Amino acid sequence: MAKTVLVPIAEGTEELEAVSIIDTLRRAGAQVTVASVMDALQAKAARGVRLVADKLIVDCVGETYDAIVLPGGIPGAEHLRDSQALIDLLRQQRDAGRIYAAICASPGVVFQHHDLIGDKKATSYPGYSEDFRNKEAIAERVVVDGNCVTSQGPGTAIEFALTLIEIMFNADLARNVAEGMLASRA
Amino acid sequence: MAKTVLVPIAEGTEELEAVSIIDTLRRAGAQVTVASVMDALQAKAARGVRLVADKLIVDCVGETYDAIVLPGGIPGAEHLRDSQALIDLLRQQRDAGRIYAAICASPGVVFQHHDLIGDKKATSYPGYSEDFRNKEAIAERVVVDGNCVTSQGPGTAIEFALTLIEIMFNADLARNVAEGMLASRA
Repeated sequence: MAKTVLVPIAEGTEELEAVSIIDTLRRAGAQVTVASVMDALQAKAARGVRLVADKLIVDCVGETYDAIVLPGGIPGAEHLRDSQALIDLLRQQRDAGRIYAAICASPGVVFQHHDLIGDKKATSYPGYSEDFRNKEAIAERVVVDGNCVTSQGPGTAIEFALTLIEIMFNADLARNVAEGMLASRA
Repeated sequence: MAKTVLVPIAEGTEELEAVSIIDTLRRAGAQVTVASVMDALQAKAARGVRLVADKLIVDCVGETYDAIVLPGGIPGAEHLRDSQALIDLLRQQRDAGRIYAAICASPGVVFQHHDLIGDKKATSYPGYSEDFRNKEAIAERVVVDGNCVTSQGPGTAIEFALTLIEIMFNADLARNVAEGMLASRA
């Protein structure tokens, strides 16, 4: 059965992070659902790119995903933080031991705000990790601690997605996808 | 006056390349117009991301841009190749000495097909450079030869855009944008 991934987006989501996650995971064969946490499917991202989601987040309630992966961007991350449907899905995800992941502002603005990190190691865009209880790994580009995966920003987004492929599938597939993309992490 | 950039998209455009170009150049302050070469503004990209263009390519005829930058992807590059409005703009761009650039399949499928490279050095996604007259640089990640700039694929797209910033603006700005994105090329 295909691995399933939920990628929530919003007005002001960092589009390069969102698309790096979606594109890279789909290259691995994951079935990725892009869900808007706004009232409309179409969202204008942080640098003005207009993205159209597959569905609304409220229509994802009750579904389970092998991973939920949050792009960053401001105010995108704030909209994700304020989506009760998404936060409920994230709490269930963490509690069930399934992968929940975030990049850029989202580890701080969403995960830390809702106390989803706990004592786990995590990273974020510089400046968004001040309230992390565990600051051991805040300077790393991608951090895996149990089922929580975090990363820093647009320039680390492909590495972040490849790490998710390695965890959800295997290292060989991650390497093949990286090579096909000519990504420097092999 | 703001630097202007035209980024054409199509059904089957590689979305990570398109968004890397648009996002990175907008971070530098460029005024980027995303134009669909299809009949509709919305296009489903190569890995299924739905992008909405700012305008149609036919409405760009008569405009001039400091740079025209083509994402790759199949069949996206083939749609770009078949757009007479785009090819006319590219010919004018080349003849006027303004920047024309392409990544992935597009240097071969669009530029080489319409004889826009000539004897210039260029690169492309592996396998799309067979008909290049000058094969000296086909293994490089980003190649600049005069006003023709080419690159290889999704994993080189940020470097490609940073090189365009260096040429259109300056090296300091390219470095600042790279740092803000946490991109490894500084």
